[in-house]
Amino acid sequence: MTAQTLAELAALVGGEVSGDGSLLVTGVAPLEEAGPGQVSFFANKKYRAAFEASKAGAVVVARDQAAGGGRSLLRSSNPYLAFARISTLFNPAAVAVPGISARAEVDPTARVDASAQVGPLVSVGPGAVIGPRTVLHPGVQVGAGARIGADCLLYQNVVVRERCVLGDRVALQPGCVIGSDGFGYALDMEGEGQGPRHFKIPQAGIVVVEDDVEVGANTCVDRATLGVTRIGRGAKIDNLVQIAHNVEVGPLCIVAGQAGVAGSTRMGMGVAVWGQVAINGHIEIGDRVNIAAQSGVAHDVPAGQRVAGLPAIDERRWARNAVAFGRLHELRRDLRDLMRRVAKLEEEEKP
Amino acid sequence: MTAQTLAELAALVGGEVSGDGSLLVTGVAPLEEAGPGQVSFFANKKYRAAFEASKAGAVVVARDQAAGGGRSLLRSSNPYLAFARISTLFNPAAVAVPGISARAEVDPTARVDASAQVGPLVSVGPGAVIGPRTVLHPGVQVGAGARIGADCLLYQNVVVRERCVLGDRVALQPGCVIGSDGFGYALDMEGEGQGPRHFKIPQAGIVVVEDDVEVGANTCVDRATLGVTRIGRGAKIDNLVQIAHNVEVGPLCIVAGQAGVAGSTRMGMGVAVWGQVAINGHIEIGDRVNIAAQSGVAHDVPAGQRVAGLPAIDERRWARNAVAFGRLHELRRDLRDLMRRVAKLEEEEKP
Amino acid sequence: MTAQTLAELAALVGGEVSGDGSLLVTGVAPLEEAGPGQVSFFANKKYRAAFEASKAGAVVVARDQAAGGGRSLLRSSNPYLAFARISTLFNPAAVAVPGISARAEVDPTARVDASAQVGPLVSVGPGAVIGPRTVLHPGVQVGAGARIGADCLLYQNVVVRERCVLGDRVALQPGCVIGSDGFGYALDMEGEGQGPRHFKIPQAGIVVVEDDVEVGANTCVDRATLGVTRIGRGAKIDNLVQIAHNVEVGPLCIVAGQAGVAGSTRMGMGVAVWGQVAINGHIEIGDRVNIAAQSGVAHDVPAGQRVAGLPAIDERRWARNAVAFGRLHELRRDLRDLMRRVAKLEEEEKP
Repeated sequence: MTAQTLAELAALVGGEVSGDGSLLVTGVAPLEEAGPGQVSFFANKKYRAAFEASKAGAVVVARDQAAGGGRSLLRSSNPYLAFARISTLFNPAAVAVPGISARAEVDPTARVDASAQVGPLVSVGPGAVIGPRTVLHPGVQVGAGARIGADCLLYQNVVVRERCVLGDRVALQPGCVIGSDGFGYALDMEGEGQGPRHFKIPQAGIVVVEDDVEVGANTCVDRATLGVTRIGRGAKIDNLVQIAHNVEVGPLCIVAGQAGVAGSTRMGMGVAVWGQVAINGHIEIGDRVNIAAQSGVAHDVPAGQRVAGLPAIDERRWARNAVAFGRLHELRRDLRDLMRRVAKLEEEEKP
Repeated sequence: MTAQTLAELAALVGGEVSGDGSLLVTGVAPLEEAGPGQVSFFANKKYRAAFEASKAGAVVVARDQAAGGGRSLLRSSNPYLAFARISTLFNPAAVAVPGISARAEVDPTARVDASAQVGPLVSVGPGAVIGPRTVLHPGVQVGAGARIGADCLLYQNVVVRERCVLGDRVALQPGCVIGSDGFGYALDMEGEGQGPRHFKIPQAGIVVVEDDVEVGANTCVDRATLGVTRIGRGAKIDNLVQIAHNVEVGPLCIVAGQAGVAGSTRMGMGVAVWGQVAINGHIEIGDRVNIAAQSGVAHDVPAGQRVAGLPAIDERRWARNAVAFGRLHELRRDLRDLMRRVAKLEEEEKP
Repeated sequence: MTAQTLAELAALVGGEVSGDGSLLVTGVAPLEEAGPGQVSFFANKKYRAAFEASKAGAVVVARDQAAGGGRSLLRSSNPYLAFARISTLFNPAAVAVPGISARAEVDPTARVDASAQVGPLVSVGPGAVIGPRTVLHPGVQVGAGARIGADCLLYQNVVVRERCVLGDRVALQPGCVIGSDGFGYALDMEGEGQGPRHFKIPQAGIVVVEDDVEVGANTCVDRATLGVTRIGRGAKIDNLVQIAHNVEVGPLCIVAGQAGVAGSTRMGMGVAVWGQVAINGHIEIGDRVNIAAQSGVAHDVPAGQRVAGLPAIDERRWARNAVAFGRLHELRRDLRDLMRRVAKLEEEEKP
């Protein structure tokens, strides 16, 4: 990416320059590290000191941000998005280098598009399909009959098991597993005369990952028992998340790190699940529900609700209760004191 | 698997046909997708509508299930197990294709059974042993001196570190790690004159995974500091679980996704640990204990108990307290109101 | 390691022999398994019975430990550290076997020190640097431009993505991922006319792992959006931990299994984070803070504090409240009873 003027960048992102529009910008950097040729970003008030001390040539800020002591600003009604677009200009996604490494193991019955990049130490199983411009980094293992769309990016040591399907522009961070067996056993008390055992239920379904999904490092998405585990279009899933068999993650959902969703649960569109949340199996989470970090959701949640806690309840109610919990010991002491005083009053009341 | 009649399937699983026993069944499918030649499954009342609308040729149900509007039923006293068996008929486990890929790295001192399948991009270290009919999928790494039994199934990118031992019929889902170092350090305030450091305690023990165990994707089982970390016969462990050094998971235990067990804890037989549970180190969990999702277990739990919460207490007591917690803010308000009223009564009582 | 006398071992670790200093020691073992030529360890009173029944030739104990019924003791003011040192003598770290496997894929522009060991099925990208005596086990993938210091130990299937930097003596357990993309998206309601989408913010920064750090199996450390995600000198991180973009883990921190730290949070020196803790983003955790297992930390925590709970509060306060929570149902019942009694008193008080 060659340099652009601040005014050009503002035009590109629909923002407005306050200061020197002719400033030549060569890249982006954090407030603390940016130099006069770089653009930085400021929104969270916690970083005001860094903003004020920054040597950045310009800073992307909200429309109502006060002037920055002579520094050029790029004001935007969505500064986070504006900065993301500018950063993408200077940090474009890697482009596939077409070809199959001599150190990859591609089954003769697999179909790899001529524009795809297959790195060393990659395996592509029988009948698998790899779409145009898709990149498979070293150590990726693609199982038999799996289908991977166009412009996908599979980082190192990703596993996509047999028959699973990825749409276009899917990104899988390193170590991510798509299509592991779901966790399903039937208790068999007799076990053919050998005593109790957990009889494995075949996990014969697949995973479908729709277009524009990103899945984090070492996250696991289990294949369905029968049918499909589905990650909807444009959903974003963080690291170390567990998505169980037959779950449906709706389009545009956000699932943060170490959250887990148990089997057959359906999430609507645009649900936000924060870190370490656990969601029960066989329930429905409505559109745009927001689930606070570490919550445990046991039952259906209607569309638009914000919930928190274990078990999860309305977020505001939870917050009030959490304050009360912080004084629970004192509350108990006060109650005991009151019990004594009431007993005394009752005693005195006796004729 | 060729087709079987519904009556043949019923005989096989000890069930009973209500309807057309001569129905030819060619496979299994979910209620929504099944066609007239397929068998489906219904037990959870939540899916009653799907059951009633299903086009399945037959449905496996409980003994007391009412008739399904003319549809054939296969009634069973354990319908989940009956369905699992039928599904296994139509989805048999893959069979090893004997041989070692030219792209695998097998140490000359390793012993790989002639009936085992060693995929490409697999390494088998010095002195390791791979048993009959065992399958190592691409990217599996087996360390020096590890011993893997018969009929095991190691999916892609599984790691079994040096000297660890797997029994027969063990299944490891992709990315699972057996034998990582336990997390043990001694605080060394002097650090040989360089200031404080965490001095690593050698993790010189191993992991033993007994027969018929299954371990989930990206789950980690740490090797013992000294001695053995043990996963007992027939235990089933889900994805992203942490089993620390020197833990003993008893036979037939169930450990659900993202649960963690700290060092040296011993679990009895048939313990059920649900999602995101944390179990403290150096404690004993008795046989058949049930630990509700997201609970934190700090102390020993006697056999047969059901516990929940953080810290975990009796499950029913926890449920009652959780209800009260949901009204904690109001409870505190009521208490304050009462304190005022009692103070007023005391005032009036004064002579 | 050849045998040493108990007196020699005591001198080495600054301990003191009670019993037979001439005892020839050939190794270490757990109390239950140790024989007369082995040293074992006893500190946790829970294992007193095993201590008393042990056949170990000698046992490392604290200075004030009573005599062990004729058995030789090695008394130390820091018995855990003393035992760790003795165990290290008998279980020395593996030494690199210099050379690059013919089955490794090392880019011609990478610089691998002649004393380093590069196993089979390893990839080392363009411009990457591998330091002296560093060991890359099978399946390790090192991205372009990554730099790995001296005496590092990368176990099987570890991924270090492009441009990330490891210091000296860094150990990464199997499946650990360094440098996955941070989880950052800007909500774009228009999405270039295609409707809402999560616009990916380039994760253009890196991870720096300083000297003497150890990171657990399948743990993920995300690269910074811009700048650096840093794991400070001598920090130890357990399995399945999530470290988000731009986090700073201070020197000598301990982070236990399945804990997670959200973006841009800074932890001071020697912080202890126990299992399944969640730490919010953009906050500061002071030096030597201790965070109890499964806690959720939402706000800054000053140096030296011990916190627990969700949301985390002072540890002692939390413990008292947890006791009260265990009786919450009864507390509520008592309060209701009191409300009735006070209403009755008020009634009687009326003129």
